[in-house]
Amino acid sequence: MKERLAQYLDHKRKRIDEALRRVMAEEKDVPAELKEAMNYSLFAGGKRLRPVLTLTVAEALSAPLEPVTPFACAIEMIHTYSLIHDDLPSMDDDDTRRGRPTNHKVFGEAMAILAGDALLTKAFGLMTRCSSGEGADAEKLIKLIDEASHAAGAEGMVGGQVKDILAETNPVSVQELTDIHRLKTGALLRLSVRAGAILSGATLDQLDALTRYADNIGLAFQIQDDVLDIVGDQEKTGKPTGRDEARHKATFPALIGLTESKKRVQTLVEEAKIQVTAASGIRAEWLCEIADYLVDREA
Amino acid sequence: MKERLAQYLDHKRKRIDEALRRVMAEEKDVPAELKEAMNYSLFAGGKRLRPVLTLTVAEALSAPLEPVTPFACAIEMIHTYSLIHDDLPSMDDDDTRRGRPTNHKVFGEAMAILAGDALLTKAFGLMTRCSSGEGADAEKLIKLIDEASHAAGAEGMVGGQVKDILAETNPVSVQELTDIHRLKTGALLRLSVRAGAILSGATLDQLDALTRYADNIGLAFQIQDDVLDIVGDQEKTGKPTGRDEARHKATFPALIGLTESKKRVQTLVEEAKIQVTAASGIRAEWLCEIADYLVDREA
Repeated sequence: MKERLAQYLDHKRKRIDEALRRVMAEEKDVPAELKEAMNYSLFAGGKRLRPVLTLTVAEALSAPLEPVTPFACAIEMIHTYSLIHDDLPSMDDDDTRRGRPTNHKVFGEAMAILAGDALLTKAFGLMTRCSSGEGADAEKLIKLIDEASHAAGAEGMVGGQVKDILAETNPVSVQELTDIHRLKTGALLRLSVRAGAILSGATLDQLDALTRYADNIGLAFQIQDDVLDIVGDQEKTGKPTGRDEARHKATFPALIGLTESKKRVQTLVEEAKIQVTAASGIRAEWLCEIADYLVDREA
Repeated sequence: MKERLAQYLDHKRKRIDEALRRVMAEEKDVPAELKEAMNYSLFAGGKRLRPVLTLTVAEALSAPLEPVTPFACAIEMIHTYSLIHDDLPSMDDDDTRRGRPTNHKVFGEAMAILAGDALLTKAFGLMTRCSSGEGADAEKLIKLIDEASHAAGAEGMVGGQVKDILAETNPVSVQELTDIHRLKTGALLRLSVRAGAILSGATLDQLDALTRYADNIGLAFQIQDDVLDIVGDQEKTGKPTGRDEARHKATFPALIGLTESKKRVQTLVEEAKIQVTAASGIRAEWLCEIADYLVDREA
């Protein structure tokens, strides 16, 4: 990764980490065991791609970061809860994540389920802090909370996880695999970008361009994950290669080949960049850099 | 139960059932398996005590039921998700609930966890529908969504479930047991009453009286559950008696005796009735009837 982008991402990531720490420190009346389990996964060293995107979008619209930060943190909490639940023995049954034991391996299944539940619940409380307390703002925020519920729920991320589980026993087409990704990871990524835009007062045109940007990089990100599962360096990705194949998981390389998969990532990223560069009033530099990074990344 | 109260509750319950069916029918893009699992527990024939209370409070304040109904349904969804997760093998490991196999027994653990997650997520989306779309209303609703997040999360219901699990291996005092119940079941019941009041434009005095009413009947309800576990009729309660003792669960009868437990239920219910009867502008009749029913109930 370019030095400048690395610094940019690092700076944004720190902002999110600090905000998340403040939020968790405020939780006073929480059983110590539960708080520990929540913090364990929330501060496990993730890339913070989603909340960083929310901040980057606000910046691209020349808006302040303060008002969007709680929503960015809320999305990261939703992402974290989904990882905890996905790792459970009855789901993907993963023992490690990012090189550390998974939540249920450390705290037990019951506590892992409850830590996930608590993070999801907290996320919606956190979203309510994005209002200036004034009328129009409040109405906008209420609509956004509804959108978040759709993106994270049965019609979005949870629905995608269900389809993913069902796909393990049924062969899927490229269209179906695209659909699974659109829901399982795309929906929340799209929310990250749209929340940043909506809370920063984006015009409809800007919101439209940013939504397409999000959908393109969301899918590119997922295909690249599939690619890295084959060609990635375990030292860098933190997970063994070839896992998808061993688990008979549907992947883009398996369906359309490795070369075509890489090409598709490239096309999606180019398309994403065109969207935000062409829209008026968007300072697209960092959004483009992030899109490029998604292709070049090794982890 | 008195015939009139039975009819009243039945009428309110039907209203909630219809509203919940409408909400679930709107969920178009949901995998069929997931929707089935959500519906299975959502329409398992529960008492609907929480949402009925929300409606009853609105009525007691001479307010329309329409604006509070989505919130009432949202609380029932949160209650339902908590039951699905509580029944899981890693938690209470229950095979039946209300005389039917538990969710994970029918749909498997993964789907049960996800159905719970989806219901919790949907609940927050549903809450957003309680706004007239006008400024002051929207601000009030945002505060209420935050309150719901606290009531259902790590500082409320989820925290209570954690404390309950920890209490299985550590002896608890009456104060600690009261605290567990206050969080595990009391917080959501309090929310049901407060949401009905806040959305119906209650004065601060009315809100105060209703909150105390909720706290009193919440604890009474839980102690009565403990009592019924000992003296209840399995045919009526739908669960075998003596389960708490067999599981070494901390209960009020175990800590303060059966007679004292019954007496305490009576006192709490009387106190609840005094609160709402004394407050001005509250038509307390049905709230009192419901409080009495909590003592007299056999299931």
